[in-house]
Amino acid sequence: MNSEANRLLFVVDIAGTLVFAVEGATAAMRANLDLLGLMVLAFATALGGGIIRDVLIGDTPPASLRDWRYSAVAFTGAAVVFFLHAFVQGVPGTLILVLDAAGLALFAIAGTQKALVFGMHPFVSMLLGTITGVGGGTVRDVLLAQVPGVLRADVYATAALAGSAVMIACCKLRMPRAWAAVIGGLVCFSLRVISVWRHWNLPRVIGG
Amino acid sequence: MNSEANRLLFVVDIAGTLVFAVEGATAAMRANLDLLGLMVLAFATALGGGIIRDVLIGDTPPASLRDWRYSAVAFTGAAVVFFLHAFVQGVPGTLILVLDAAGLALFAIAGTQKALVFGMHPFVSMLLGTITGVGGGTVRDVLLAQVPGVLRADVYATAALAGSAVMIACCKLRMPRAWAAVIGGLVCFSLRVISVWRHWNLPRVIGG
Amino acid sequence: MNSEANRLLFVVDIAGTLVFAVEGATAAMRANLDLLGLMVLAFATALGGGIIRDVLIGDTPPASLRDWRYSAVAFTGAAVVFFLHAFVQGVPGTLILVLDAAGLALFAIAGTQKALVFGMHPFVSMLLGTITGVGGGTVRDVLLAQVPGVLRADVYATAALAGSAVMIACCKLRMPRAWAAVIGGLVCFSLRVISVWRHWNLPRVIGG
Repeated sequence: MNSEANRLLFVVDIAGTLVFAVEGATAAMRANLDLLGLMVLAFATALGGGIIRDVLIGDTPPASLRDWRYSAVAFTGAAVVFFLHAFVQGVPGTLILVLDAAGLALFAIAGTQKALVFGMHPFVSMLLGTITGVGGGTVRDVLLAQVPGVLRADVYATAALAGSAVMIACCKLRMPRAWAAVIGGLVCFSLRVISVWRHWNLPRVIGG
Repeated sequence: MNSEANRLLFVVDIAGTLVFAVEGATAAMRANLDLLGLMVLAFATALGGGIIRDVLIGDTPPASLRDWRYSAVAFTGAAVVFFLHAFVQGVPGTLILVLDAAGLALFAIAGTQKALVFGMHPFVSMLLGTITGVGGGTVRDVLLAQVPGVLRADVYATAALAGSAVMIACCKLRMPRAWAAVIGGLVCFSLRVISVWRHWNLPRVIGG
Repeated sequence: MNSEANRLLFVVDIAGTLVFAVEGATAAMRANLDLLGLMVLAFATALGGGIIRDVLIGDTPPASLRDWRYSAVAFTGAAVVFFLHAFVQGVPGTLILVLDAAGLALFAIAGTQKALVFGMHPFVSMLLGTITGVGGGTVRDVLLAQVPGVLRADVYATAALAGSAVMIACCKLRMPRAWAAVIGGLVCFSLRVISVWRHWNLPRVIGG
């Protein structure tokens, strides 16, 4: 990959980290936590998924701890929520949904890609991609002593899983990795946005 | 070990994974989670203990992620509960208790054995065996925002601890490893089953 | 470092482990858990922070599992609370606060130091030091299905963060590592004790 593409990827990655950090800090603010609580939840939400993936594939220290800029961006997200909360609360819900769906797609695809590079089986890579996408939000909810939202509602982890699966299917069809990633990411993003728009939900056991 | 014995061990291991996965998915169903929630809790319950053990002893990626069949079996457990829940709910409680005790014994002994192979101190191997047995259920309960059942009630982790301790004592007495494993496993299994049957509980601090 | 200093460090480390283990077991007793619950929470509170740090920096098996004496001390703490709970409950709150602040300072500084030795960036080392100090208590609270106290109240993680930051600043000023550690530890300890005494709290978002 040329350095131009690498730089683009880094910028996109940092943008996703910032979006997730702002969401984590907002959840902390709603739970009436103090400034440190905002920082911790921003960090956990933004970096938790990637850290779990890296620990599981044995790439330690995790990438987001090898480069101090990731933690710095996570804390920037907390600071934005703390000092500009009136502004953050004014952001339209639709924009947050779109940004979050983009972050989810990005993290899921990047996680799948990294797991493949580390020689994991495609099926396991799909799971690790999903964990990368939803792991941070899960850690955040566990720290807030709540059942993780991804287990409970809408098509969220499912979108990540579908995007990863499509990416891996495209790779199996001998498509170039970059194309596979873009198609997988678009599937995850669209599925997430459409599912909110159309109120899709996964089936449950009736009377379970 | 000859390949015949290896194959038997693999089959037993897969059977234990399936039992724990069904239990995890059943807990998810009771908490009114959707299909994805069932999959996640089946995965966490069945593979969580072994994954924690492998991360702690530094054997990453964890064994259950190196072989895609473990995840596949976990999801099969979730599918069984989802599509055949009427059937699963009809399984007698006694059978579930016996299968679960067998899974617990198997996981605890396998965990102790692996920790010893990786050169951990016998005392720490005993702890890691117990974590292998009860770790998955603990992760499941944390994800359901509940105090883990193993901390709260009956002789469960204690049975795993006792089985591991007996296995290690047998090894110290220069018994062959396979015999030590069988004796330790029987102690764990019997202690668990008898403790439920006789309503045994560990002591608590009175008025604490 | 000469062996005399090493021995002193080991004694101090074991003392900190015991204090945290007693606190974890006391929390378990208050939640009406049984003897095994006390052992698990003592273990998690005393060793959780260091284990998380070691998994993240890739030093597995974690130091506290390589030496069986750490687990033994953690379980000793649980036994002390179980058998001598009348005595433990009679310990003045001020003494507990001072011992806990000392343990926090010790763990935070030792964690920062180890992260630096493993080549982590100073900013990330500061975070890892803080995680070492507060990680155990966080795991304990998650297992009790509570929002971790460190996210919610007073200057606790903040004291660890400040101590780590001061230690790193002193290192940057080319102070000898041992001096930097002592100054950082004193900052963490004093900040914690004074903040309880003066009822300091971190700011929150008003009306958030």
